[in-house]
Amino acid sequence: MVHNFSAGPCILPEEVLQKASESVKDFNGIGLSLIEISHRSKPFIAVMDNARSLVKELLNVPDTHEVLFLQGGASLGFYTAAFNFLKENGKGAYHDSGTWSSKAIKEAKLLGHVDVVASGKENGYSELMLDYSIPSDADFFHFTSNNTIYGAQWQTIPTSECPLICDMSSDIFSREINVSDFALIYAGAQKNMGPAGTVLYIVEKELLGKTGRNIPSYLDLSVHIEKDSMFNTPPVFAIYTSMLMLEWLKNLGGVKAIELINNQKAELLYNEIDENPLFKGYAHVNSRSKMNVTFTLTDASFQAKFDEMWSEANINGIKGHRSVGGYRASIYNALPLSSVQALVNVMKELAIVTA
Amino acid sequence: MVHNFSAGPCILPEEVLQKASESVKDFNGIGLSLIEISHRSKPFIAVMDNARSLVKELLNVPDTHEVLFLQGGASLGFYTAAFNFLKENGKGAYHDSGTWSSKAIKEAKLLGHVDVVASGKENGYSELMLDYSIPSDADFFHFTSNNTIYGAQWQTIPTSECPLICDMSSDIFSREINVSDFALIYAGAQKNMGPAGTVLYIVEKELLGKTGRNIPSYLDLSVHIEKDSMFNTPPVFAIYTSMLMLEWLKNLGGVKAIELINNQKAELLYNEIDENPLFKGYAHVNSRSKMNVTFTLTDASFQAKFDEMWSEANINGIKGHRSVGGYRASIYNALPLSSVQALVNVMKELAIVTA
Repeated sequence: MVHNFSAGPCILPEEVLQKASESVKDFNGIGLSLIEISHRSKPFIAVMDNARSLVKELLNVPDTHEVLFLQGGASLGFYTAAFNFLKENGKGAYHDSGTWSSKAIKEAKLLGHVDVVASGKENGYSELMLDYSIPSDADFFHFTSNNTIYGAQWQTIPTSECPLICDMSSDIFSREINVSDFALIYAGAQKNMGPAGTVLYIVEKELLGKTGRNIPSYLDLSVHIEKDSMFNTPPVFAIYTSMLMLEWLKNLGGVKAIELINNQKAELLYNEIDENPLFKGYAHVNSRSKMNVTFTLTDASFQAKFDEMWSEANINGIKGHRSVGGYRASIYNALPLSSVQALVNVMKELAIVTA
Repeated sequence: MVHNFSAGPCILPEEVLQKASESVKDFNGIGLSLIEISHRSKPFIAVMDNARSLVKELLNVPDTHEVLFLQGGASLGFYTAAFNFLKENGKGAYHDSGTWSSKAIKEAKLLGHVDVVASGKENGYSELMLDYSIPSDADFFHFTSNNTIYGAQWQTIPTSECPLICDMSSDIFSREINVSDFALIYAGAQKNMGPAGTVLYIVEKELLGKTGRNIPSYLDLSVHIEKDSMFNTPPVFAIYTSMLMLEWLKNLGGVKAIELINNQKAELLYNEIDENPLFKGYAHVNSRSKMNVTFTLTDASFQAKFDEMWSEANINGIKGHRSVGGYRASIYNALPLSSVQALVNVMKELAIVTA
């Protein structure tokens, strides 16, 4: 058994992998593979409908909002979000919490004025800057709910007078949120929702079509809503596997239930980081992510030994991002508490063998 | 055994489906699924490299061109193509052969001037209009090599003084082409290359960066080239399965070999349409597609009987597109000659039982 701490694409539940694998051979016993049938066929339309319904159910999405499964990841989402909400001659307010926010800002600047209300750049993005004010004339306020690289996460969802837009790629479905607070949520699937290859949009319908812009069809969320998320051929396998993952979450008790487990996992690992003198956390305590736990060794000379030990314990994917170094344990929804325990055991063992 | 004539997503070879299915459970024996490992891991980088290399090998892609696997389908490709090649204040020349060309034209118009040099609209797109001239000041000439809905295909690749751009979604890898003739080829995977969820770009590198435009990152082909097609998390499963499909094609003898088989399949079916008084072809003889064979019954009263007969013969997916009606048999690379024979047998049988 491999303890898979990959930052994304990341661990998926065994039963999801089994069903996804089976669908590629024979989809629900129809004698054809899921990936060789028309996306306009009844069996696939049922998949799309079910996937969208499960998102609505799990997140209590109100009728004011619609759910879409598109392509291009959050990277295309940065531009799409701005195209749909940044008015001609308007202004977008952006919070900069690291790499992903910076990329969102870069794309929005191609379309108009951007006001960066706060940036954690000077402190290496280890802490979320919460002292900011949003200009009263901003079309929207954009933030990244969790930074996978630095391991910093908004502990609570910010409030805003203007429409709220969030790149929630790395912590959607990990904790309860109030969807009606948001004008737009977008999230690449490959953390808590499924495999790489699709990106979720949850958008407040009434706010669309107000920018005065002529939006390219694929980037126009209204176009996708009108076509029931089937404007063009959807990424069939990624959506089906996401549907399986959402079913798994529902059977487990939903977002409320997984949030409790996620809290346990994070507490277990951060406690060890704080108590074990060989380790220290990277992110500031008040910004600690419950999805990506970043930490370093206090004595770099123990690195070879630690790397050998976790590798022997079948732990995978905890090397830190190249821009931060150290270690990063990604503890997304599908990662069991027992895997976190396995890592904590190795950390404890390191303290013993090096004492 | 189902004879799968779906127009796309479409039939894939059995061995491709088996290997793709296996990879979702355990990828090459690493103890993890293909879809839960990092796209920056060695095993996946090898997949991406191999997929790109196979495209280069199978199509004899010269060093002047680069190969990318992106997302958003040809529908986003319409806009991407124009963004990378239509100069500020420039002009794009477009050939309109139906739905897909029309969509490409619509997206390009958002960026600048479009000159539609020919359109088959008045004849229901049943024939490719070959009497046209390309303005000498056009930045490029864009055409759709095969129209899946009307079953009309360019019999030979057009020549042009200006850079040639082609949406080759539905016939790439079906016949030999000279890649150096093209500035850009783009093609959704879900016909001859793999499952839905990725789109292939083959682009002449030196022609990029000359429009004077500030291109959004995801739409900028230079950005993707610089990042070896890994600018952001790629659609892992769709690319891996495409790689398997390209390996299958290589083992079969490559494009030259499949072209011979495709010619046999098309000849068999068109011969029956021409000889059997109960059927007539939709597309003009000089524009007939070797990928999508469109036809109707000469006597509509036989429809119920014909539908019953092909359904009983385990034939699937031959209902015509809603905008044309009648029948459409999509005979892409992975469809065996024996499936075409099965359909022809039913057509012959219909003539006998209704005589």
